[in-house]
Amino acid sequence: MKHYQKMIHEWLNVQRKNGIRLLTQLVQQASTQGNEAKAQAIVVEKCRQLGLEIDIWEPDGEKLREHPYFISPRTDFSNSPNVVGILRGTGGGRSLILNSHIDVVPEGEVEQWEDEPYSGAIKGGKVYGRGASDMKGGTVSFLLALEAIKAVGIRLKGDVIFQSVVEEESGGAGTLAAILRGYKADGAIITEPTNMKLFPKQQGSLWFRITVHGKSAHGGTRYEGVSAIEKVKMVLEQLQELELERNARVVDPLFQHISIPVPINVGKIEGGTWPSSVPDRVVIEGRMGVAPNETVEMAKQEMEHCVSVINQSDNWFQTHPVELEWFGAQWLPSSIDENHPLVAVLADAYKRVKGETPTVEASPWGTDGGLLSQVGQIPTIVFGPGTTAVAHHPNEYIEIDNMLIAAEILALTIIHWCEIDEAGERTS
Amino acid sequence: MKHYQKMIHEWLNVQRKNGIRLLTQLVQQASTQGNEAKAQAIVVEKCRQLGLEIDIWEPDGEKLREHPYFISPRTDFSNSPNVVGILRGTGGGRSLILNSHIDVVPEGEVEQWEDEPYSGAIKGGKVYGRGASDMKGGTVSFLLALEAIKAVGIRLKGDVIFQSVVEEESGGAGTLAAILRGYKADGAIITEPTNMKLFPKQQGSLWFRITVHGKSAHGGTRYEGVSAIEKVKMVLEQLQELELERNARVVDPLFQHISIPVPINVGKIEGGTWPSSVPDRVVIEGRMGVAPNETVEMAKQEMEHCVSVINQSDNWFQTHPVELEWFGAQWLPSSIDENHPLVAVLADAYKRVKGETPTVEASPWGTDGGLLSQVGQIPTIVFGPGTTAVAHHPNEYIEIDNMLIAAEILALTIIHWCEIDEAGERTS
Repeated sequence: MKHYQKMIHEWLNVQRKNGIRLLTQLVQQASTQGNEAKAQAIVVEKCRQLGLEIDIWEPDGEKLREHPYFISPRTDFSNSPNVVGILRGTGGGRSLILNSHIDVVPEGEVEQWEDEPYSGAIKGGKVYGRGASDMKGGTVSFLLALEAIKAVGIRLKGDVIFQSVVEEESGGAGTLAAILRGYKADGAIITEPTNMKLFPKQQGSLWFRITVHGKSAHGGTRYEGVSAIEKVKMVLEQLQELELERNARVVDPLFQHISIPVPINVGKIEGGTWPSSVPDRVVIEGRMGVAPNETVEMAKQEMEHCVSVINQSDNWFQTHPVELEWFGAQWLPSSIDENHPLVAVLADAYKRVKGETPTVEASPWGTDGGLLSQVGQIPTIVFGPGTTAVAHHPNEYIEIDNMLIAAEILALTIIHWCEIDEAGERTS
Repeated sequence: MKHYQKMIHEWLNVQRKNGIRLLTQLVQQASTQGNEAKAQAIVVEKCRQLGLEIDIWEPDGEKLREHPYFISPRTDFSNSPNVVGILRGTGGGRSLILNSHIDVVPEGEVEQWEDEPYSGAIKGGKVYGRGASDMKGGTVSFLLALEAIKAVGIRLKGDVIFQSVVEEESGGAGTLAAILRGYKADGAIITEPTNMKLFPKQQGSLWFRITVHGKSAHGGTRYEGVSAIEKVKMVLEQLQELELERNARVVDPLFQHISIPVPINVGKIEGGTWPSSVPDRVVIEGRMGVAPNETVEMAKQEMEHCVSVINQSDNWFQTHPVELEWFGAQWLPSSIDENHPLVAVLADAYKRVKGETPTVEASPWGTDGGLLSQVGQIPTIVFGPGTTAVAHHPNEYIEIDNMLIAAEILALTIIHWCEIDEAGERTS
């Protein structure tokens, strides 16, 4: 095995500049929701160069919306194609899905960026721009891994199904569409930015909205009203209680270094309309983490119970109940057995390339892995070169070295998982 | 004295329909800020009919803005004239300002109104429409009182200075302009909607804005951030403490039936931008009541001290201080000695008309009385026929009976205060 590892390593070293060029081209396409087509065209062209079987299609929103786990603010995916490129195996090996998403979150306030948000600027061993870490760097690692395998003349037994999907940042409709199109495999890897850690488990998440009612009055006679700002305090406290309870139950060692494994985050608050009126309505919006070993339905039930306790325990709320709504995004949690062979194969490849054991943790955020594992029944692991510390932030970047090292680790993983067809191998 | 009281009473009874017509005409003019001219034209025409000396002018915003108590979102008062009508006395009597404002607050959501917001509909002894209570009913009471005095042939020694001002709802620039134009008197009455109570003292108020800073992070790793929603709780608690302290000091018996004499009302809260992000900023806006016996400067100092204590007592706030801002509206508190002759004269007139002692209280809101008393040095009392329970609300109305009774009480008050010039009296 060692001889091709060296060849792959050397080939990647030589191709470093081409890999960087591919990444900057992808970053320079502002592939926010609805604007993914040009970035996908670059991916398609690369797949064509690699001789992959190519499948390009626009997800069918009308059909998708019937699925219970369809989450998206839109059902029209015109000009938002999914791309799949298949490296067909010779047969008899395990198949593997390589999943990455092409959509990026908006750039936010342009003033906070040192360079243009989609510059693809190269500075100090890093490529800068929205999507560099999340997750075009991971896309390039996949494509470099496949190119390296082909370049060194290896033929695989199992199929490798590379997926460049839309819509991950909005709840996974792109990956859901790929699953419903029939793409299955014996395992899947997602190169979301784990900062080179292995995440066999990923936290899911749900968005909630809670509305608290009060009674309006003039601020000068505020005692004649009921302040929704006063009343929301009890709700915030109960949410903290619920978070404590839920996290006390998390004993998975993968969470041992994480102070709050499944947080309940209140991200937004808005209430009242006039400084000198008693506010009769406050709305909070937040994100509830879902543990890898629970379902979104279980998590929802606990929150609903918490709200019903609030509504029973307070005189005002008994007649003016707090309202709970699930809205917006949702990511299913995902979990693969730590002893699953895919984890072992990836960890082994990591060790061979890096000379050390990888960090194995649970992720604090959801990915399309929840859909792949829960809907597609495909064992899924998340591992990628970017870092969430810069994802969704101004001046997002990726370290070029990590992108190349990840490509090498992925190449070895693919080879080990899908197996070499010795008969078909052109070099030895 | 009794003979003219009876004549005034009978005259008002006969003129009831004319009074109602004047009110509906005024209510039908939507005299929100910037749109006061047509309603003022009706007032001017009435003053002309009454033979008053008329002064009409647009306040000079550029000059007003230099005054420390000038509060308005605008400095251009084109087409927003103040109107003054003087019933000149024969000399030797006390002068009296009759102050009412012509501007109304916006109608709010039209769907919540049974009739059109500016219908002037007459139903069940009430006239409906924005401004009926606050305070076009009070304006009509003044004008009817003056008309009655003239109708029964009384000539007064003191001057009566009727003022129909703009801009009360935005902080009093109209009354400030009248004071700075030189209008002075030995006393002033404002017919704000007191529901026929006497308010010798009025609470002032200040608007404040407090900004609380946090530190953003992804909701899935919320422990890496500092939630401004969490941190604002301490600020809300300290504001409640401050309110308790300030109200514990209020021992004035005029406040004995008011559970919180000078409330601190938090009317608005807004923070965070994304459900799954830790909010790094929360802004609250509110109204601070100012006691009649304190200045706005004293009240501001207490709030500023409270915020500095918050900033010193919390580790996070030491490096990320809470910010306090005074913005928007401000009403000066106002206070007249309960033994001032104007209170006695008004209470006496009330008793003669209603056959009972009036309720004397402190008002829970500010009026232009603060400017009249503090800037103009004019002893001021607030008494009017409308009710704040419906002011600023949909389906605002005024009871026609009260408008007429108030006119009678005001007529007697004016006569007693300004004194009859017996030589000039045409009827006896």
